[in-house]
Amino acid sequence: MGNNLLKGKRGIIFGALNPDSIAWKVAERAYEEGATLTLTNTPVALRMGETKALAEKLNTKVIGADATNVDDLKKLFTESIEFLGGKIDFVLHSIGMSPNVRKERHYSDLDYNYLDKTLDVSAISFHKILQTARKLDAINEWGSVVALSYVAAQRTFFGYNDMADAKSLLESIARSFGYIYGREKRVRVNTISQSPTMTTAGSGVKGFDRLLDFAERMSPLGNASGDECADYCITLFSDLTRKVTMQNLFNDGGFSNMGMSLRALQQYEKGLYTDESTGKRSKDHSWD
Amino acid sequence: MGNNLLKGKRGIIFGALNPDSIAWKVAERAYEEGATLTLTNTPVALRMGETKALAEKLNTKVIGADATNVDDLKKLFTESIEFLGGKIDFVLHSIGMSPNVRKERHYSDLDYNYLDKTLDVSAISFHKILQTARKLDAINEWGSVVALSYVAAQRTFFGYNDMADAKSLLESIARSFGYIYGREKRVRVNTISQSPTMTTAGSGVKGFDRLLDFAERMSPLGNASGDECADYCITLFSDLTRKVTMQNLFNDGGFSNMGMSLRALQQYEKGLYTDESTGKRSKDHSWD
Amino acid sequence: MGNNLLKGKRGIIFGALNPDSIAWKVAERAYEEGATLTLTNTPVALRMGETKALAEKLNTKVIGADATNVDDLKKLFTESIEFLGGKIDFVLHSIGMSPNVRKERHYSDLDYNYLDKTLDVSAISFHKILQTARKLDAINEWGSVVALSYVAAQRTFFGYNDMADAKSLLESIARSFGYIYGREKRVRVNTISQSPTMTTAGSGVKGFDRLLDFAERMSPLGNASGDECADYCITLFSDLTRKVTMQNLFNDGGFSNMGMSLRALQQYEKGLYTDESTGKRSKDHSWD
Amino acid sequence: MGNNLLKGKRGIIFGALNPDSIAWKVAERAYEEGATLTLTNTPVALRMGETKALAEKLNTKVIGADATNVDDLKKLFTESIEFLGGKIDFVLHSIGMSPNVRKERHYSDLDYNYLDKTLDVSAISFHKILQTARKLDAINEWGSVVALSYVAAQRTFFGYNDMADAKSLLESIARSFGYIYGREKRVRVNTISQSPTMTTAGSGVKGFDRLLDFAERMSPLGNASGDECADYCITLFSDLTRKVTMQNLFNDGGFSNMGMSLRALQQYEKGLYTDESTGKRSKDHSWD
Repeated sequence: MGNNLLKGKRGIIFGALNPDSIAWKVAERAYEEGATLTLTNTPVALRMGETKALAEKLNTKVIGADATNVDDLKKLFTESIEFLGGKIDFVLHSIGMSPNVRKERHYSDLDYNYLDKTLDVSAISFHKILQTARKLDAINEWGSVVALSYVAAQRTFFGYNDMADAKSLLESIARSFGYIYGREKRVRVNTISQSPTMTTAGSGVKGFDRLLDFAERMSPLGNASGDECADYCITLFSDLTRKVTMQNLFNDGGFSNMGMSLRALQQYEKGLYTDESTGKRSKDHSWD
Repeated sequence: MGNNLLKGKRGIIFGALNPDSIAWKVAERAYEEGATLTLTNTPVALRMGETKALAEKLNTKVIGADATNVDDLKKLFTESIEFLGGKIDFVLHSIGMSPNVRKERHYSDLDYNYLDKTLDVSAISFHKILQTARKLDAINEWGSVVALSYVAAQRTFFGYNDMADAKSLLESIARSFGYIYGREKRVRVNTISQSPTMTTAGSGVKGFDRLLDFAERMSPLGNASGDECADYCITLFSDLTRKVTMQNLFNDGGFSNMGMSLRALQQYEKGLYTDESTGKRSKDHSWD
Repeated sequence: MGNNLLKGKRGIIFGALNPDSIAWKVAERAYEEGATLTLTNTPVALRMGETKALAEKLNTKVIGADATNVDDLKKLFTESIEFLGGKIDFVLHSIGMSPNVRKERHYSDLDYNYLDKTLDVSAISFHKILQTARKLDAINEWGSVVALSYVAAQRTFFGYNDMADAKSLLESIARSFGYIYGREKRVRVNTISQSPTMTTAGSGVKGFDRLLDFAERMSPLGNASGDECADYCITLFSDLTRKVTMQNLFNDGGFSNMGMSLRALQQYEKGLYTDESTGKRSKDHSWD
Repeated sequence: MGNNLLKGKRGIIFGALNPDSIAWKVAERAYEEGATLTLTNTPVALRMGETKALAEKLNTKVIGADATNVDDLKKLFTESIEFLGGKIDFVLHSIGMSPNVRKERHYSDLDYNYLDKTLDVSAISFHKILQTARKLDAINEWGSVVALSYVAAQRTFFGYNDMADAKSLLESIARSFGYIYGREKRVRVNTISQSPTMTTAGSGVKGFDRLLDFAERMSPLGNASGDECADYCITLFSDLTRKVTMQNLFNDGGFSNMGMSLRALQQYEKGLYTDESTGKRSKDHSWD
C-alpha cells in the first residue's frame, strides 16, 4: 500500500516498545515504503516490550543497545550495517524518560541525579547516536535523522517537569549537530514536535488526559495520531525533503500556533460559569 | 514620585483617548519621569475622548493628526519640536482599529476595503510615522520608538480577526525600519506585546472577558495592567536600554511562554467534567 | 518516475511564469505524481511568460486571473472544478511583487500606493484565494494550500524592502485562515520559507547574487533549489502531512537556524583582513 | 549618578571575576542604583580573579560558593540574607564554562564527562540556585532573577560548541522555573541574550574576534557592551518590569533579528571578489 518512498533505504529505529509506540508505527510504515531496518531498545525495554514480535513481522532483528552507552551504539551501527548490507539512510530517535516524573518529584524539588538521567536518556543520547554514527561514517550522504520532541521545549506545560528541559536540549543538539553533519556529509537532522500522544510514555505525565482534550480542542485539525506522525517521518526520511535540516517541525494539527480556539474557549467557559455549589451555569453566553 | 528616568527628554504620545487607554498612562508616567511631551489623536477621537483634559494635566497641548496622513504627521512633528523646544526623544504608537471587527465581519468573510483600513490605521501608520520623522530628522540620536502589539501576531486567537494580521505587519515594520533608523541615527524601534487589557479598544473583541480570564489564569504573574505597561515603556524610552532594538517584548505575566498552567487547566477541567444536563461534576480529579 | 503521491488529486498552481519559476517546477512535479491541475497567472504575466507551453505539456489549460480580484478568483475556482471534474485538493500561491523594489524606492522613502500594491499582490491575494475557495466550498476535506515565503518575514535583509513586511503578513494570513479552514473543513494551510532562488522575481532584489552566495555558505546543505522546493511541496500536498497546518516550514539547507558557519566566516574574514590599498591579506588566521 | 531604581533592594551577583566581567559591571551599577548586595564565585575563580577588590569598593563581602553545589548555595543564601539584613530581591547568574571548548574538543568529538560538566556549570546551576532559594523562601515577592545567555541558544554558531546546548537548557530552565516561582511568589525569571562581549570567558571561543566584527557590522546599533548589559539588568531588577517573566530578552543592537545588513554584506563582498592569488578585487559593485 506504500508509495516506494524509501525503496532501497536502510534504517535504524530506536524506541519501538509496543504497538502504541510511535516508533513502532514508524517502523511499520518505513517497511511498507520499501525500507529495510533494524530495531533497537534497551535491554529492560526489550524484556518488558514486544519489540521482537515487530522484528519478526518486518523480517528483521532486534539489536539491544542502551542509547546512553557509546559502545552499545558502536555495536548497533556496525551490526546494522552488516545485517542490512550497507550504510544507514535514516534513523529515528524516539526515546524519553524522566525519573523525576516517575518518582513524582516536583520541578521545584528535583533530584539532580535523576535530572542527569533525564537529560542523558532523553537528549544526550541523541548526540551520542550522531557522534557515533559520524565517527564510524555509518550514514550515507543525504541520510536523514529524526528525533521526536514536544512543544514543551518552547512553552511551559504544567506537569511536564524536567522533560521540557530535556526536549529543549534535544532540539538544540539537533541544530548543533545538524550543522556539522550537514556541511560534511549532507546528512540532515531534524526534530518532529508531535501532538501529545497516548503512548506508554505519555500516560505517565500528570493530567495527561485533560491536556490531551485541551490540545484536541485547541488544534483546528485535532491532535496528530501516532500513525500520522509515522507518515510525517516517512516524508522526512524520503528524498523529497533533502534540504530540510536543523528544523523543529510541528505535527500537531496547528496547536503550536494557536492562542485560543473557539472550541477550547467554550469548554473553558463552562468551567468558568459553573457555580461550584449548585453545579448550575451561572451565566449564559452566545457564540456565533 | 518618579526616578527622573526621562529628565530632559521630549516625546509624542499617540492614542491617549481616556484614562483607560494605555497611552494615557504612558503619558502620565513619562511626565512623572521628567519628560515633556505632546499628545495626538485623530479628530474624531479628540471629539469622543478626553485627551484635552490630559493635556492640561501634563501642561502640554494636543495636536490633532490622522496617523495615516503623512501631511498631518509632518505638521505634528514640526509643531511638537517647536512646542517642546527641540527634537524628539521618544514616540509611543498605540493605535489600532478594525472595521471588520466593528462590523462583525468574520475572518472568512472580510470586506477588503475594511481590511485595507485595518492595516493602514493599525500598522502602516507606524511606517508613516517613522518615515516622516526620519525625513524631517525629527528624532534625536538614541531616540526610542515603541508600538503596542499583541501575541495574536504570533498565534491565532479566536475572534481577534484581521487585527492579528495587522499586528504581524506592525511588528515586521518595527524590524524593517529599526534596521534603517538604527544604523543611521541610533534610533531604536521596538514593539511591546501586552497582555489583553480592558481598554475601550479591547472591549470590542468577541469573548474578550473570557479571554482575559484565561490569560489571567495561564500567566504565572497574571495579566499585565495598563499601568505596568506604562512602566515598561519608561524603561524602553530611558537610556538604560540603548542597544535593545527590532525586538518584540512581551509584557504579559509570562503568558507567551506558557503552554498550560495548573490554574487554567483546573478551570478547563471543570467545564470538561460537568454534566451538561444535571450540572454535576461527572468525575473527580485530584491535583497536587 | 513519481511515486503516485498525488494520484487522483486536483490542483491549482498560481505563478508559473517560465521554467525558472518555482511554481513551474511544482506543476511539473505534481503532474508527475499523478495529479491533474490548472495553471493561472495574471493577464500580463501570461503575455510575458510561457505558461501556455507548460499547460500543453501537462495536458491542461491556463485560466487567467488577477489574484487580487475576487471575481477572477471565483471564475478560476469554478472553471478549474469543471475542467478537472471535481473539487480541488491543493493550491500553490507563488506570487510576489513590489513596485517599491521595482522603482528602487528605498524602505525609508516608500510610496504608500506602491506599498498597498505590494501587500495586495503578495499577501492579501492569499486571503482572497482562501476566502473565495471557502465560500464556494471549492476545496476537498484534507485539502492542502501552500504559499511560498522567505525568511525576511522573521529577520531583516538589506534590500528586501517592503517585501519583508508582505511576507510577514502572508505568513500571518496562513495562520489565521488555517485555523478557520482547518476546524471547518480539515483544509491545511502552510507557508514554505524557501532559500533565495534565482528566479525572474528574485533577480530584482538588490545585491541578490551576493546574498545568494552568503546563504549558500551559511547553509550546511547549501541553498535549496527550485526543484527541491517542488519536492517539498509534493509532501505537503500529499496525504502524508495531514496534521501539519498553520506552519511556516523552512526549506533552506539549514540557513534559518544558522548564526555563523565556518565557510561564511572564512569568506567574511578575507574581506576583513584584506588591505584595501594593496589588496594584500593583512593578517593570517588558521582554522581547523 | 544613579536614579535610585534599586533603592532598598538586596541582591546576589554570581560571576564577577574581573572588571571585564559583565557581572562586575552589573554589581557596580546595582550599587549605584541604591542596592546592597553580596558577591559570589567559585573558590578557584576567587583565587584567580579580583572579586575581593570589588567587594571592598561596594562595601560588601564575597561569599565563596560552587554554584553546582546545593550546600554551598544554601550557605550563600543564608549568609547573604543575614549580612544584608533581609530577603533577596534580585539575583544575577553569569556563569558559563565548557571543558570541551577549553580542551578544544570538536562538537563531533565531545567528551561526555566534559559535556556533563558544561551543562552542570552553565545551566543546571541556575536550577540549583532557584530551587535552593525557593526552598529557603529566600527571595522576596516580586523579586527578579536574571541569567545571561547568547543567541547560540537559537541558532548555530561555528565554534560555540556545546555552550550552545547549555544556553538552550539554561533558557528552558528559566521558563520552567519562571512558571513555578511566578505563580507562587511573584518572582520573575528571565534571561538576557547579550551581544558577544570581550570578557575573559568570551575570548576562549574560536574565531571570537571575527565573530565580534561580524556581529558589530550586522547589528544596526553595533554590539551591546558590558556596561549596556548592566544597564539593561537594572531595568529587569527594578519594579518597572514586574510582569516580564519567562522571557529571553535580546540586548544585542538588533543582531538577533537581522538576516543581512549592508555593512556586513559589503565586508563579505570584499572577501568574495578578492582574487586569492593576486589579492586584487576581481569585480566592482556599487551600493547605494
